[in-house]
Parts: sequence; structure tokens; C-alpha cells
Amino acid sequence: MSTPFELTMKVRDYECDMEGIVNNAVYQNYLEHTRHEMILSRGISFAELVEQQIHVVVARADIRYKSPLRSRDEFVVTCSARVEGLKIFFDQEVRQLPDRKLCVQATFTCAALVNGRLAAIPELTNKLIDVAD
Amino acid sequence: MSTPFELTMKVRDYECDMEGIVNNAVYQNYLEHTRHEMILSRGISFAELVEQQIHVVVARADIRYKSPLRSRDEFVVTCSARVEGLKIFFDQEVRQLPDRKLCVQATFTCAALVNGRLAAIPELTNKLIDVAD
Amino acid sequence: MSTPFELTMKVRDYECDMEGIVNNAVYQNYLEHTRHEMILSRGISFAELVEQQIHVVVARADIRYKSPLRSRDEFVVTCSARVEGLKIFFDQEVRQLPDRKLCVQATFTCAALVNGRLAAIPELTNKLIDVAD
Amino acid sequence: MSTPFELTMKVRDYECDMEGIVNNAVYQNYLEHTRHEMILSRGISFAELVEQQIHVVVARADIRYKSPLRSRDEFVVTCSARVEGLKIFFDQEVRQLPDRKLCVQATFTCAALVNGRLAAIPELTNKLIDVAD
Repeated sequence: MSTPFELTMKVRDYECDMEGIVNNAVYQNYLEHTRHEMILSRGISFAELVEQQIHVVVARADIRYKSPLRSRDEFVVTCSARVEGLKIFFDQEVRQLPDRKLCVQATFTCAALVNGRLAAIPELTNKLIDVAD
Repeated sequence: MSTPFELTMKVRDYECDMEGIVNNAVYQNYLEHTRHEMILSRGISFAELVEQQIHVVVARADIRYKSPLRSRDEFVVTCSARVEGLKIFFDQEVRQLPDRKLCVQATFTCAALVNGRLAAIPELTNKLIDVAD
Repeated sequence: MSTPFELTMKVRDYECDMEGIVNNAVYQNYLEHTRHEMILSRGISFAELVEQQIHVVVARADIRYKSPLRSRDEFVVTCSARVEGLKIFFDQEVRQLPDRKLCVQATFTCAALVNGRLAAIPELTNKLIDVAD
Repeated sequence: MSTPFELTMKVRDYECDMEGIVNNAVYQNYLEHTRHEMILSRGISFAELVEQQIHVVVARADIRYKSPLRSRDEFVVTCSARVEGLKIFFDQEVRQLPDRKLCVQATFTCAALVNGRLAAIPELTNKLIDVAD
């Protein structure tokens, strides 16, 4: 399992819906952006992966909504990765600042496709999960 | 369980990302819009629910991505509801037209809150699940 | 000048903001989608343009907001094109149904770039503006 | 005229379209978020304005696209305000970092409505334009 990665963001007004709370789909934007920033922070280059015909795809998103964020709330999105067989799991949370109240808990199941087939990509997964552990 | 509801839509270019496929979060937009249209089609008025301090919230979204939609694809989103205790489940699919290829399969777990507390709302759930069955 | 093109759409709840009205940026989505559908309806293939290294870009968007759309409103977006020198102008309106009340009036100034340079593309502009006129 | 306000942001992958560049409508999100943050930074409370039935609306958006932003680009959005009669103008720019290359130049024309009628709101405009100047 990887060291958790964290990204701090702030709700933008256009992300809120008629009820004055962040729309459910927008959390997926926050979660995706954080996964991508985590992957970059581990020195993984999407461009190089794509050159090798490797595509990392989301197979499943399991998102539990606990408490809504509102206009101008600041929050942190966490991300840690684990690998089981050919699957890469990203466990993520959205927590409202300053008290880190849990807003959203999610697990994304991803897989690497090479030429459209599931494949193990150690150069990807090793970087993702802190091989030193 | 309810009679399935269906809504036909078409991918808009701005919904596609750098890989030329519909971004994962956008399917939540499609799925939410279809749920709201289904609820309206059953004669349920959000305005009246809110006047009675009833809020229907999503507690969990479980979304499985099977095959991506691309620019200008036409597709149908289905929705059927079932009630278990205080939970309302919406089972949904996104299927590409014309061959109805399965793109996304999702279950949304919802609940009705009255003054912030979980409550059974028979006037809502009866309309949703076709009591005649 | 071209025969006007029209596309009918319906507001989706996630497009509305905290004030219960469609967010200003979302009209650009409606306007872009209608321009792209108009271009397709004239038999112009983006894929073929891109193969020839032709990129059609928006240089300016001038949008006047007259009256807001709300949740579930139906509306029509119109589009007509005119060409002046190397510029292509798209004049567009968003009108609420059923009475066609004017909501938004916009002009988009576009240009075709070939290898990054402005160029006249008669095979594009002729199709766009109904040469028969 | 007001002291310019600046906000630094970073492109998120879901904001990019099929061509790998930020979609034109997304810049309106960036520009709106920056205007709202500027207004807050001047100690203006939307909640208090709304309590007094004052609504600030965008009447016109004039946006010139100069150079596109791409995935992960960092950029700054500037905003300064000026008042002419009953109109409030926000002059804004999007500039790519680190060299501050101009990407977008925009002017938003806004007005304050009290009970649906145009009105001068000195307590708003004075805070916006740095009366001390």
C-alpha cells in the first residue's frame, strides 16, 4: 500500500447546484484530479505509458456520500493505492477543512490495458505503491 | 420493482476528454438527469417534497464502466427503482445505440431525510415503484 | 448568409447553480453543441479537416444574457453563419419554449488555421453558407 | 478603477477536450471563480446583498481567445473593476505561467438589480473600486 497523497482545494461556486451544495458528479472531478496529481507526483508519465500503448482505465467507481460541501468550503482529497493481481485500487477521501470532517469516501478500481488486454505493468505499479515497503 | 424508464441522449463534444471518450464523471450527469426525469414522469414534485422538508439524497453511487461512449454517439439511459426498508435503490444502465451495447451499469442508493433524519415516505416510494405490481 | 439551423434541448438540473438558474458558462456548452451539430448537418467532416491540418478555432465569443433559463425549461438554440474575409461569424440565439422568449444572443468569431496560419477554406465556408444563395 | 486582483490555478485534466486543450466554456468558469473571489476579498457579502434583494447579474461576456491552455498548465487570472453609470465592468485576463503569456482577455458587463430593476448600489461599487483612489 502506498503513502497517502493529499491535495487541498476550494469549492468554486459553479460547482454547486440548486440546493447550494456541490453536485454529486463534481466530487468525481475532485477525485480524478487528485489521482492524476498523485500519479504525476510518483514520476509516472502518462505520455510515456500511452507511447507504449498502455491505457489505465477506471473499471469501477464506488462512492459513498457522507456530508455535503458548500460554496467556498476548503477541503483535502486523499489518495492511496494498492495492487491486487491485475487490479489497482485507489482509496480516496474528501475531508472538509479545517476539522477534516469526512464528506466522501470512494474506491476506484483501475486496470492497465495493453492493446486492449489486461496486463501487469510493474514499472507503473511499483512506482505507485512505494516498493520500499 | 418499477417499470424501467428510458431516456435517449446524444454525446456532446464538450463532454469528451483528451482521449476522445466521455469523461467518467459525465456519466453521473447522464444518470442523475435520467433519475430526475423518471421521478417527474411518476408525478412526484420535488417542490412539494421540499415544502414538506423532505430531501432525497444519494448515499452511494456504485458505477461500473464497461465500454466508453465517443463524440456524437447516441445512447439510452435506463432507470428502475426498488425499495428496501428506508433505502431506495435506482438500478441504471447506459447503452449505446443502435445495438444497445452496455457502456455503464450503476446502482444509486438513496434515502429520504425529514428534518435531517431518515424517514419512510410512502407517498414518494409508492409512486416510484408502481404499487399496482 | 446561411439558412438558420435549430436544435431543441432541455435544461438538466446539474446545469443550474445556487440561484436555481442555468450557470452563465453552460450557455457556451449549448451554443458550441449547436454549432457542431450545424456543421455536421452541412456535411462537413471535422475528421477530414483535421487530416488536412485544418483547425477551426474560436477567436471571440460575445454573449449577451437577456433572461435566465431554469430547471427543466425547454429551449431552442439557433445558429446561422456568415463569412467576411478570413473570418467566419456564427450568430446564435437561445430562446425559451414554448413562446421563444429571447434568453441569450451571441456572436462567435471563428477562423480556420492551416499549419497555425489563417487561411481561406472555400470547401468549408461554401458548405456553411449555402452557396446557392 | 480597482487594484487588480489575481488568482493562480492549474488546469485539471477533465477540463480539457478532445483536442487536448481547455474547452472554451471552461475559461468562463475560471473567470467567474476569480470575480467571486475578488468580490469576497473586498469584504462584500453575497448573502447580505441577497437579503436586501440585490442581485448582481452578468449582462454581457466578451471573451477573446488568444492562446490555449493545456493539461496541467499553471495560470493566473486577473480581475479589475470599473463603474460607469449603472454598469460594473470587470476586465479580466488569463495568463499562462511562468511567462504570463496571454491566453484569454475578457470583459464582463454586470449590473445590480433591486426587485428586478437596475439600481446604483454605492456600498457595493465603492468596495469594488477602491474609493481611496
